[in-house]
Amino acid sequence: MKQIDKYLPFVLQHENIARIEDDALLVGDRRLYPFKKEFYRCEDLEGAAEAIEKMVTQGGGPVHVAMTAIKLLAARAEAGKSAKDADLFEQAKQRLQRSRPTNTTMARALDVLVARVTAGIEKGQNIEQIAEGFINAFKEEYQQNALRMAEVGASLIADGDGVMTMCFAETSFILSIALAMEQGKQIKVYSPETRPYFQGARLTAPCLQEIGADVTLITDSMVAYMMSQGKVQKYMTAVDIITRDGWAANKVGTFQNAIAANYHGIPYFPFAIDPDIGRVGRDSIVIEERDPEEVKRVKGELTTREDMQAYYPAFDIVPPHLIAGVITPKGLVSPYQLEQVFGERV
Amino acid sequence: MKQIDKYLPFVLQHENIARIEDDALLVGDRRLYPFKKEFYRCEDLEGAAEAIEKMVTQGGGPVHVAMTAIKLLAARAEAGKSAKDADLFEQAKQRLQRSRPTNTTMARALDVLVARVTAGIEKGQNIEQIAEGFINAFKEEYQQNALRMAEVGASLIADGDGVMTMCFAETSFILSIALAMEQGKQIKVYSPETRPYFQGARLTAPCLQEIGADVTLITDSMVAYMMSQGKVQKYMTAVDIITRDGWAANKVGTFQNAIAANYHGIPYFPFAIDPDIGRVGRDSIVIEERDPEEVKRVKGELTTREDMQAYYPAFDIVPPHLIAGVITPKGLVSPYQLEQVFGERV
Repeated sequence: MKQIDKYLPFVLQHENIARIEDDALLVGDRRLYPFKKEFYRCEDLEGAAEAIEKMVTQGGGPVHVAMTAIKLLAARAEAGKSAKDADLFEQAKQRLQRSRPTNTTMARALDVLVARVTAGIEKGQNIEQIAEGFINAFKEEYQQNALRMAEVGASLIADGDGVMTMCFAETSFILSIALAMEQGKQIKVYSPETRPYFQGARLTAPCLQEIGADVTLITDSMVAYMMSQGKVQKYMTAVDIITRDGWAANKVGTFQNAIAANYHGIPYFPFAIDPDIGRVGRDSIVIEERDPEEVKRVKGELTTREDMQAYYPAFDIVPPHLIAGVITPKGLVSPYQLEQVFGERV
Repeated sequence: MKQIDKYLPFVLQHENIARIEDDALLVGDRRLYPFKKEFYRCEDLEGAAEAIEKMVTQGGGPVHVAMTAIKLLAARAEAGKSAKDADLFEQAKQRLQRSRPTNTTMARALDVLVARVTAGIEKGQNIEQIAEGFINAFKEEYQQNALRMAEVGASLIADGDGVMTMCFAETSFILSIALAMEQGKQIKVYSPETRPYFQGARLTAPCLQEIGADVTLITDSMVAYMMSQGKVQKYMTAVDIITRDGWAANKVGTFQNAIAANYHGIPYFPFAIDPDIGRVGRDSIVIEERDPEEVKRVKGELTTREDMQAYYPAFDIVPPHLIAGVITPKGLVSPYQLEQVFGERV
């Protein structure tokens, strides 16, 4: 298998997402990138949950942080530093799952991991090894899936294309651009800054610059204008969830960009490892509402009056008819055919 | 005629936009609002042009600042402090017109004002009085037009409506909300922050709060989501230009919001005193491209890498088929009928 790390920028290299060092969990602090490459130290489970809540990491990061937090708990139980108790892991799982309610990839991985750990406790097995085995297999599968999706993504990008994205579409997208460039295609990428957290300005644009891509930063309000100027041929983003009938939730703004793409005849291709097969329709997706204070501030500084009313839905939902095809490890799949293609995994 | 000042927030009261004091031009500094109510002092014509370029004032402000700058020049000529020379006024006009190329309201007002001043110089008349007379008549007509547009705007807002706006739609819009509230209608207004200059966060939301309206600040990426939740029944903005065949330029983002409104069946009503009758079609509008550094920073602080490539088109253009009707002093006019309704003014 192709080694993907060589294509990836610093923040996406696996050991820079989450790792255990000196009995603590270190999380690559994406809030400080690209200005600093530092790690946020979590001493315990609560610290890890808070790191996810505070968006120290985001996108594809939380699932790795959450699983590694469970592994740390398992290591401590095996070392006799804490109880080897199924309830403790169940509570830990629930605490982590509450940290980002829209992130069902994390929720589902934790369900399986904690079920295995709990079974291991019952059988008197080494749960640290169980956790480590599960996480290594997950990581291996994650990277293989990212590579397969990136091969599909790269194949959809034509020489001379302008590609619009939103927020931070992580490994699959960055790798798609890297592979398309390796194929000799001239590409321009447009990265909206993604208020209020600036993931586009802080993560996507610097990551693309780091791998040598021609990337241009814009504000979130310029997407349709760029499309109207003929600068954009493809629109590609990650998704946090896609339901089995093709409703895709991602960072707020993804939906209005998809509407603008559709208006301009530009295809929208979201990346998804697989659908959340247990969910059907828009109403099955819980939209996380974050602290409205974040909308009123940039790096802590107010942009409006202190007493202003604000609202911060963190995600929005794209309906299947605005999706040209879902980039999955199984190839490009119609949003109307996800259930048939992925149904056997239920 | 109804006195409109009592309905208006601080920044929109006429004497707080531009006035002459102690042989200098004072411009209400909208960059500091709502945190400070201060005035930017321009010592000469160049200072006034720079104030407009630096967005000390914006939207409907530049036309008043530019005309007042011409009046200051005329006053100085009459006082013998500078030459009473037509070329000087012609150069001043051109300098001011270059300061915001998309703002044709300012350009057209300056053309008429400077033509009158030049004629006055030829005839040996008092050009300070000529300038003052023109400006007073302009202001009176401006306020009457704003009131008529606001009456139309208020009549389009129904009890219980949610109204989306963009950037800072100035007197006509704020007054529409004030009049609708006076009519006893319960209204919610949603104000996107309007990156990179935050006119929504700094001007629109605080102005609406100041007049007691129920306003909620969102980011520019949340517009379509709010619409999808059924919270928005009307979309209303100012325009910087509307051509005689109904192409409307306004702050970048206005276009993608109009696409999202159309997608959700929400009517878009821009405010315009009159069309720019000399312009036809999208290509007749010059889109000002501002310094891309502004996209990379918030209050001077970088949001991305220093060496990042960025792009800053300041406006975008809404096609007539996305406009439900133009709110004008002559009532609600179809974007396809502007030429018939306003043609006699050519």
